[in-house]
Amino acid sequence: MRFVSGWAGERRPPRLPERGRAPSAEDAFASQTSPRTDLAIEAHELAVQASAAVDGIDTTVDELDGIRVSRMHVRTKEAERRIQKRRGRYVTIEVPGLRRRDRELQERVAAQLAAEVKRFLSIADDASVLVVGLGNVHVTPDALGPMVVDRLFVTRHLFSYMPKVLGEGYRTVSAFSPGVLGVTGIETSEIVQGIVERVKPDAVIAVDALAARSLDRVNSTIQISDTGIQPGSGVGNKRKAIDQPSLGVPCVAIGVPTVVDAATIAGDAIELVLEQLRRTVPGNSASELFDQFSPAEKWQMIRELLEPLGNNLMVTPKEIDEFIEDVAVVVAKGLNLALHPAMTMDDANALTH
Amino acid sequence: MRFVSGWAGERRPPRLPERGRAPSAEDAFASQTSPRTDLAIEAHELAVQASAAVDGIDTTVDELDGIRVSRMHVRTKEAERRIQKRRGRYVTIEVPGLRRRDRELQERVAAQLAAEVKRFLSIADDASVLVVGLGNVHVTPDALGPMVVDRLFVTRHLFSYMPKVLGEGYRTVSAFSPGVLGVTGIETSEIVQGIVERVKPDAVIAVDALAARSLDRVNSTIQISDTGIQPGSGVGNKRKAIDQPSLGVPCVAIGVPTVVDAATIAGDAIELVLEQLRRTVPGNSASELFDQFSPAEKWQMIRELLEPLGNNLMVTPKEIDEFIEDVAVVVAKGLNLALHPAMTMDDANALTH
Amino acid sequence: MRFVSGWAGERRPPRLPERGRAPSAEDAFASQTSPRTDLAIEAHELAVQASAAVDGIDTTVDELDGIRVSRMHVRTKEAERRIQKRRGRYVTIEVPGLRRRDRELQERVAAQLAAEVKRFLSIADDASVLVVGLGNVHVTPDALGPMVVDRLFVTRHLFSYMPKVLGEGYRTVSAFSPGVLGVTGIETSEIVQGIVERVKPDAVIAVDALAARSLDRVNSTIQISDTGIQPGSGVGNKRKAIDQPSLGVPCVAIGVPTVVDAATIAGDAIELVLEQLRRTVPGNSASELFDQFSPAEKWQMIRELLEPLGNNLMVTPKEIDEFIEDVAVVVAKGLNLALHPAMTMDDANALTH
Amino acid sequence: MRFVSGWAGERRPPRLPERGRAPSAEDAFASQTSPRTDLAIEAHELAVQASAAVDGIDTTVDELDGIRVSRMHVRTKEAERRIQKRRGRYVTIEVPGLRRRDRELQERVAAQLAAEVKRFLSIADDASVLVVGLGNVHVTPDALGPMVVDRLFVTRHLFSYMPKVLGEGYRTVSAFSPGVLGVTGIETSEIVQGIVERVKPDAVIAVDALAARSLDRVNSTIQISDTGIQPGSGVGNKRKAIDQPSLGVPCVAIGVPTVVDAATIAGDAIELVLEQLRRTVPGNSASELFDQFSPAEKWQMIRELLEPLGNNLMVTPKEIDEFIEDVAVVVAKGLNLALHPAMTMDDANALTH
Repeated sequence: MRFVSGWAGERRPPRLPERGRAPSAEDAFASQTSPRTDLAIEAHELAVQASAAVDGIDTTVDELDGIRVSRMHVRTKEAERRIQKRRGRYVTIEVPGLRRRDRELQERVAAQLAAEVKRFLSIADDASVLVVGLGNVHVTPDALGPMVVDRLFVTRHLFSYMPKVLGEGYRTVSAFSPGVLGVTGIETSEIVQGIVERVKPDAVIAVDALAARSLDRVNSTIQISDTGIQPGSGVGNKRKAIDQPSLGVPCVAIGVPTVVDAATIAGDAIELVLEQLRRTVPGNSASELFDQFSPAEKWQMIRELLEPLGNNLMVTPKEIDEFIEDVAVVVAKGLNLALHPAMTMDDANALTH
Repeated sequence: MRFVSGWAGERRPPRLPERGRAPSAEDAFASQTSPRTDLAIEAHELAVQASAAVDGIDTTVDELDGIRVSRMHVRTKEAERRIQKRRGRYVTIEVPGLRRRDRELQERVAAQLAAEVKRFLSIADDASVLVVGLGNVHVTPDALGPMVVDRLFVTRHLFSYMPKVLGEGYRTVSAFSPGVLGVTGIETSEIVQGIVERVKPDAVIAVDALAARSLDRVNSTIQISDTGIQPGSGVGNKRKAIDQPSLGVPCVAIGVPTVVDAATIAGDAIELVLEQLRRTVPGNSASELFDQFSPAEKWQMIRELLEPLGNNLMVTPKEIDEFIEDVAVVVAKGLNLALHPAMTMDDANALTH
Repeated sequence: MRFVSGWAGERRPPRLPERGRAPSAEDAFASQTSPRTDLAIEAHELAVQASAAVDGIDTTVDELDGIRVSRMHVRTKEAERRIQKRRGRYVTIEVPGLRRRDRELQERVAAQLAAEVKRFLSIADDASVLVVGLGNVHVTPDALGPMVVDRLFVTRHLFSYMPKVLGEGYRTVSAFSPGVLGVTGIETSEIVQGIVERVKPDAVIAVDALAARSLDRVNSTIQISDTGIQPGSGVGNKRKAIDQPSLGVPCVAIGVPTVVDAATIAGDAIELVLEQLRRTVPGNSASELFDQFSPAEKWQMIRELLEPLGNNLMVTPKEIDEFIEDVAVVVAKGLNLALHPAMTMDDANALTH
Repeated sequence: MRFVSGWAGERRPPRLPERGRAPSAEDAFASQTSPRTDLAIEAHELAVQASAAVDGIDTTVDELDGIRVSRMHVRTKEAERRIQKRRGRYVTIEVPGLRRRDRELQERVAAQLAAEVKRFLSIADDASVLVVGLGNVHVTPDALGPMVVDRLFVTRHLFSYMPKVLGEGYRTVSAFSPGVLGVTGIETSEIVQGIVERVKPDAVIAVDALAARSLDRVNSTIQISDTGIQPGSGVGNKRKAIDQPSLGVPCVAIGVPTVVDAATIAGDAIELVLEQLRRTVPGNSASELFDQFSPAEKWQMIRELLEPLGNNLMVTPKEIDEFIEDVAVVVAKGLNLALHPAMTMDDANALTH
């Protein structure tokens, strides 16, 4: 999960608060003028809400028995700019029921995820894949990536030590958690590039926890895309991206929103009361009145509100520890199924820790 | 930490969502008309804000070198009703610096806490004390109580097995974490009463995580009171309280706010925008306009906003895991110092795990 | 798990090593003259090995598809003395395959455990049961009891708040982890008695981690008995026992060996080398030679060997963290099935955390 | 910690036990003919015991107030072969008191470690250092490396984002935990080499948990050496080593023994009983008798004994979770002091998490 501030929030710089904090962090927050979301589907919804349809974006939706699959193709540079998400394909699997513990549904979601990942990868049966688990294992809502990595069925060492130990239908899979900048002092992208150069996989899958703008997508949504992971919103800083251009091989990103920024909740509350006023107060002048707040002014208010604890406030359900464990198992199962053609659901159940 | 819903939120009732949830939970939320706080000092502030001074409450404040100690005495039944906190004495230690890792400051706070606890207890040097750690050890911001219990220097077994092993100046201390209703199926108060009847301590200290209404009090404030722990706001349900009347011995409660309800943040945002409008829009009619929202209406809006994930949403800083560990050590050190007259700060540093 | 030393080993007494350690601990170790085991089946085997059949003990064995169920009835006082296990019934479920992750086998073991527990309990369909999870949650191989408690489907609070929320076929279940003496300062039995007096269950189930003398029973064996939990070997200290006489209601104990004492491994190595010598060296005098070591002498050697780290050394497989999680789920599933007649295996899978 | 079996033991290969286990693992165990130790000082002791002094090894010992510092220089190829430890310098800090919680002693050990590390490093004040934490974070006695990494004061990102944020006297430090082969599928050395190529540090420090052959060195000994980390004993497999030749920069290894192999305990017990026999049985023939066991035969017996759970059995004190946390803090403090010339002990106390 990339917090607005880049590195500053990743670890409390003890006893060095005045030195350890990036000046840029607050500026980034200050200049934020819309609710933050890492989900392309939400970015698109926001853009459409703000100004009708956005050109250059194709979307389709399938729905079956509690699972909703949206496919979005961001085709043009202009569309990219409008929704602040990179050109490419995004698939969003939404499953409100995922927050209940329903094993049958979880297996169906894992199978769906596997099917979507296979479509994105289109690699040979003997191709090798490196899975990267982004995030901080010690911060519960940010631990999804490392938790998925810990549950994968890795095989690269088996192939190199005992080539015949695995039958056909198993790919060469390795997996890896690079940690976070605040703990390592190294850009995550540098670490990933270093490993990729050594391991030389045919493709990379990067798993990360995301922030949603909508509470009902938290812990119930999986986003898959071929755009990789971008630091910040669409800036395209080549050095820091974890994507095909920076790695030299296809990079599929898988993300699950686990939090909503506190700023988003506050922003929504403000919108709600303004909306209410618009409805109650008659006349044109009133309408103008309540449209008076520019996005910048609204965020100024929100900053004021959240100031004491900076911009690292997150909203999570109290049961986050349990939710995230469940979701990590679903994602790991889906990846085990996608990466090893010979693996059955029974195998995946037994092999996913 | 007692969430509004009583037991419902303490554990996700798996596969029984429609049955497992208490109908009363949502009603409690619906009828809530002001931001929730477990801190008496904030309840008082809110009451004063709403309608000037509250009779029957005495307050004094001391401040020294980064530590602010407020003492409040809620004397009358009317005052109790007004601020919805039980009659009794409340001491609040506020230390903004506690969120930095400053060992010297932490030791001073522990010493201050020890001094205040001693004042509340006024027990003999050979009295016995039972410390109860409330909350759910598996939910980070709710784990304060069990974390403090794990770090105490307990002696009851030493006295009974080897009466002379400890010199003078050590009291008979036992400690205990009763778990939460959703995991045990037993009211916490029943468990505590059962243990008290067996252990027969001369006093009980109950440690719990709290919710604040103000972000800047999170993880930087310690409340001590002689009112014990009340389920819900001042209702006085005898069966569920953990206090002197229900236990038969003095009960001192120690609490640290670790979260703010998401509803509070949303409510604050609404207030902020209304305030802004009051300032910008001239004329009396405008003022009326923005006062039109009754508390009930405001909370209706907030419910709408937070509905998808119910009323178990909390706002925490991302570094909650680290913060809470630090605070648990400070509280445990303070208690070790308060309970064992012979203990020096060096001893406390070594003995507090 | 009750270590030989009673309370002394349960927590490192920091900075008070010379005072905090029970003098009795070392004596207990010194006087130990045979390998320690908490399994009645092993105690029986040892006794038979030492001196042929033991009167007053009935045994039967069933075996089916990877699961071996031994039933032992210790009938007489003399038998009790001989094997140092209390009179009563013991069922041992041995499943070597349990150390592999085989979900189908795990479900069969859970079902078998459920069947055996039902046979032991013989309570009405509307009876209430309290499950007690013994052991230290912070010491991995000792955490089985608390881990099982955390995974149970408790219902007592549901029945009291919403009597009709659960259909027929669910019993009133509560569950509870009393902690360990070194952390609470309170005898575990006192805590359990205090809770039982409040909750008034019709039966108690106590879950605990055990020590085996044989490595191949570690993490692959479940013992069920109607003798409850006895502190130390058969001493019958009424105050400390967790059993029917002390609680006033039937008490079924469920245990899983998770460690072998290092002393046992050392003792076995000594036996092995002596056995080898007996075989290689011809003549009667040789035989005498190698029988010269009395049990006391052997344990003197072992004490010498293990002295530096006292008698708290345990032998565990490196994968203990993973093993114990798996076993806790199996035991919790078995209990959920045993306690709620209406529960299917699918329900148990979903409801066991 | 490198277990004999190389990769096999690092993770239980679920449901693939017959395929997932390296055939070489058991062979390695079978061919082992002496107790395993990762400490050069113990390897030297063993060699001296077996056949008097070893040429080509210089040793000195200092002792001051509870801390014993041994310096060993393995100078020749022959010495390397004899003790099966690479040529180079080894410093061993032994502190029996480290197992008690004595903060003053811990600080002195951290200072001593810092002094020794500085001597080994001899790098410029503005040199950059990468710390690598080896081992498996999910296996308590193997988690030392990752736990140290989590507690370091890393600065590399601070220097690149805000060059002036830190005053003089801070080096560019980064830190990193590569995980274990069984979880990543990638040789640890490959990962480290990949990172080193990217980060280009002037020196590497590798921290790892070790196995000792003597119980009284567990959790009370720190070994520092300039030989890096070698997989297996002295084999010199270039591809897998983490050392100066493979990394191209100086590599200092820091290790703390946290376990003893169960095989070592068993072997010691056998030695003990044979020794006893030698003393009791008069005559030359007896002496021959008890010398009859070749090392290979002894290990055959031990294999038999430990077979059921393979060669992944370790002996640890029950309090391992607490011990290892304490030691990790001492090592991290020592490294923080060694790497940042401007850092005082007070700084280190505050900055070491």
